[in-house]
Amino acid sequence: VSVHLAKGMRDHLPTAMKNRQHVIDTLRGVFSRFGFEPLETPAVERIETLTGKYGDEGDKLLFRIADNAIFRSGEVPAVGKICDQALRYDLTVPLARVVAMNPDLRLPFKRWQMQPVWRGDRPQRGRFREFWQCDVDIVGTTSPLADAECLAVLAAGLEALDFSNYRIRLNDRRILAAMVRAAGASDRETAVLVAIDKLDKIGRDGVTAELSRIGLDEAALTTLWSILDIPVGLEETLDALAAALDEGGRAGVDALREVLPNALAMGVPRGNIVIDATLARGLDYYTGPVYETEVLEPKIGSISGGGRYDKLVGMFSGRDVPAVGVSFGLERIITVMEELGRFGAPAPAAKVLVAVWDKSLKAESLALATQLRAAGVATELYLDDAKLQKQMKYANERGYPYVALIGPDEAKQGVIALKDLRSGAQELLGEDEIIARLT
Amino acid sequence: VSVHLAKGMRDHLPTAMKNRQHVIDTLRGVFSRFGFEPLETPAVERIETLTGKYGDEGDKLLFRIADNAIFRSGEVPAVGKICDQALRYDLTVPLARVVAMNPDLRLPFKRWQMQPVWRGDRPQRGRFREFWQCDVDIVGTTSPLADAECLAVLAAGLEALDFSNYRIRLNDRRILAAMVRAAGASDRETAVLVAIDKLDKIGRDGVTAELSRIGLDEAALTTLWSILDIPVGLEETLDALAAALDEGGRAGVDALREVLPNALAMGVPRGNIVIDATLARGLDYYTGPVYETEVLEPKIGSISGGGRYDKLVGMFSGRDVPAVGVSFGLERIITVMEELGRFGAPAPAAKVLVAVWDKSLKAESLALATQLRAAGVATELYLDDAKLQKQMKYANERGYPYVALIGPDEAKQGVIALKDLRSGAQELLGEDEIIARLT
Repeated sequence: VSVHLAKGMRDHLPTAMKNRQHVIDTLRGVFSRFGFEPLETPAVERIETLTGKYGDEGDKLLFRIADNAIFRSGEVPAVGKICDQALRYDLTVPLARVVAMNPDLRLPFKRWQMQPVWRGDRPQRGRFREFWQCDVDIVGTTSPLADAECLAVLAAGLEALDFSNYRIRLNDRRILAAMVRAAGASDRETAVLVAIDKLDKIGRDGVTAELSRIGLDEAALTTLWSILDIPVGLEETLDALAAALDEGGRAGVDALREVLPNALAMGVPRGNIVIDATLARGLDYYTGPVYETEVLEPKIGSISGGGRYDKLVGMFSGRDVPAVGVSFGLERIITVMEELGRFGAPAPAAKVLVAVWDKSLKAESLALATQLRAAGVATELYLDDAKLQKQMKYANERGYPYVALIGPDEAKQGVIALKDLRSGAQELLGEDEIIARLT
Repeated sequence: VSVHLAKGMRDHLPTAMKNRQHVIDTLRGVFSRFGFEPLETPAVERIETLTGKYGDEGDKLLFRIADNAIFRSGEVPAVGKICDQALRYDLTVPLARVVAMNPDLRLPFKRWQMQPVWRGDRPQRGRFREFWQCDVDIVGTTSPLADAECLAVLAAGLEALDFSNYRIRLNDRRILAAMVRAAGASDRETAVLVAIDKLDKIGRDGVTAELSRIGLDEAALTTLWSILDIPVGLEETLDALAAALDEGGRAGVDALREVLPNALAMGVPRGNIVIDATLARGLDYYTGPVYETEVLEPKIGSISGGGRYDKLVGMFSGRDVPAVGVSFGLERIITVMEELGRFGAPAPAAKVLVAVWDKSLKAESLALATQLRAAGVATELYLDDAKLQKQMKYANERGYPYVALIGPDEAKQGVIALKDLRSGAQELLGEDEIIARLT
């Protein structure tokens, strides 16, 4: 019998799960401190909710659900009719749907959401078809304080996870659009931005070659590079961009002039953020400030990102509702933390193994395990019949710090033997004493 | 523009989410105290992993995934080829797959798993196509202590959720099989058990009618009812069953004679558990003790259940690995707790709103919010420009207990005004004092 996972899927066994829970619990704590509230949306959405939001590439990667009625009827319908549902592709579009469907929601609506998403990418090393996003969004305000708060959550989340060697790159969609306009290539904006987005991967020459292929001439390239080459920095970068761009671009610069100092005042470290005109986030729906975070060592690409999307809710409800948010990529963060050796040894499943001397003393061991658990001590009871030596070895192999045992002598005296497996010391304790020792 | 959820799906808005998290966090605490470790498996499984495990009805309810390559090619393949993947239907079969794929796993493997599952049921009031199971299982031992421990987790979980008015019904698959054998209907065992399983819903006459339809004659019915009519109870019920059944059935009785006293010794309240020969759990894969829990008031059906399934892992690996487990149904538990008014008012998103006096004092408010958050206080910052009165009203409407404010006078004195919205009292506090007050 051969048994396999579905393509691009994986299990999270206990050691991995403990690391994942550490990150999720930490982020949940940070999100709650910022006043965000939890939301969950279903894995399955109507296909029309998802298509047309992520660009053509995104649409192709949707996991589509086949109506199981088809399999009962045995008929073959037209392709377009087979699937009217698909799996969640990100957490932003479902949020926009929720806002559109709940007009009574009090705004601003600040929510966090941590759930898996699915994308039918070709599986690669370290890339999976199911992965988690950890998002916070603020819906219902155009205030630049909201953008700043997203940057502050980002920095606070990374700090809580013990990251300091990271860089937030900040840009604005309007700066990007103005740049493309200056190069006279507005009719090919998406293609130009896709090329610029590859700067990290294919370098300056690669981007130039791709832009030439798109049809940008020498003059256009010179103009574009004169802007892209503006050194990353803070206020001085904004000044240089303002001087190089048209009025539409300056609107983006002005937005960042509001967002940046507020983000700094809200705790984003000055050394961890830069204005970077080359940052071109892929998703179609952004309309204002956009940002992405990379860890500087080890290099692994973006671990979080986000931006303002003031038109997405309107795609569902016809009524524009401004929104801004940030998404942490759980798997990337875990990969970096693993490479940095941040997780240490996994916590054992229990603090104490309650061993069983023999059948005649089983009831005492069961009662002890029950009392310890009731007192909040993570307790494993040895379930099978086995010699004491084997039970001790079992506890050792699993890394449990203690073994508790009631043998005939202990039963007679009404005490429990507690063995510390690290020191080898053993002591006889009363019921209250052992609880006090282990809690 | 009209916008909808997919059929049978729903969102969990913040108030509902807080209740869900309360239940999940509580169960996670109980599971951890019993020495269970976390596991997650992917939403998407290969179709052959899932089919043939849940009976014919189950197979029909699978959510099948269409390979998105189909939609790129535009070709219409044969129905059987469209889908080679499906969504998780429960957490037990994926666990069996994990065990089969990881032969190095240390046994017994005690894991908890809380994840959504999907079933393409016809949506009904209160029944959804996506719902959560909260499972613990012990894999790798035939010890009746393992069955008892599952019953103990069940009772501890319900107690931690503040349930006392519930009843665990305990039976054994071998008792059911022997009963059907006694009625001479072993060739129709599944049909007979399906009929018996409806006793609660269609009553004694309904079940008799259905059994007659299946072809049981008067004598068979008399025999069957003589066993089903054995009053529910504890040891005396086991004695009566032992007297009524053949050797195969007595093996089931003997198993329960081991499991029951151990479960009681491990804290299952004597008044909350009964032996009930009419309990016929639906799933095909059970092989030994089975159990189900119902809340007595309000009546809502089973809120948790489980049993022993010693052959399921072998369906994947060819090597039998014994296993036993219990599953809590999150949605049913929440429904009962809601009906019993157990949740109370939802906690507000923040403990304090930091109001902003005006632009000139914004930096001070941002710094205050940042300090409070760093100290662990759930803090909302008012993001938009608004009169103070509007900000106060906002905090009131959202149920925040406090508003903190730095106006011109406070700024001059280097203090913060903290208003208690319930009492109306306001005091001036230093930075350390306000943190001490709110933590």
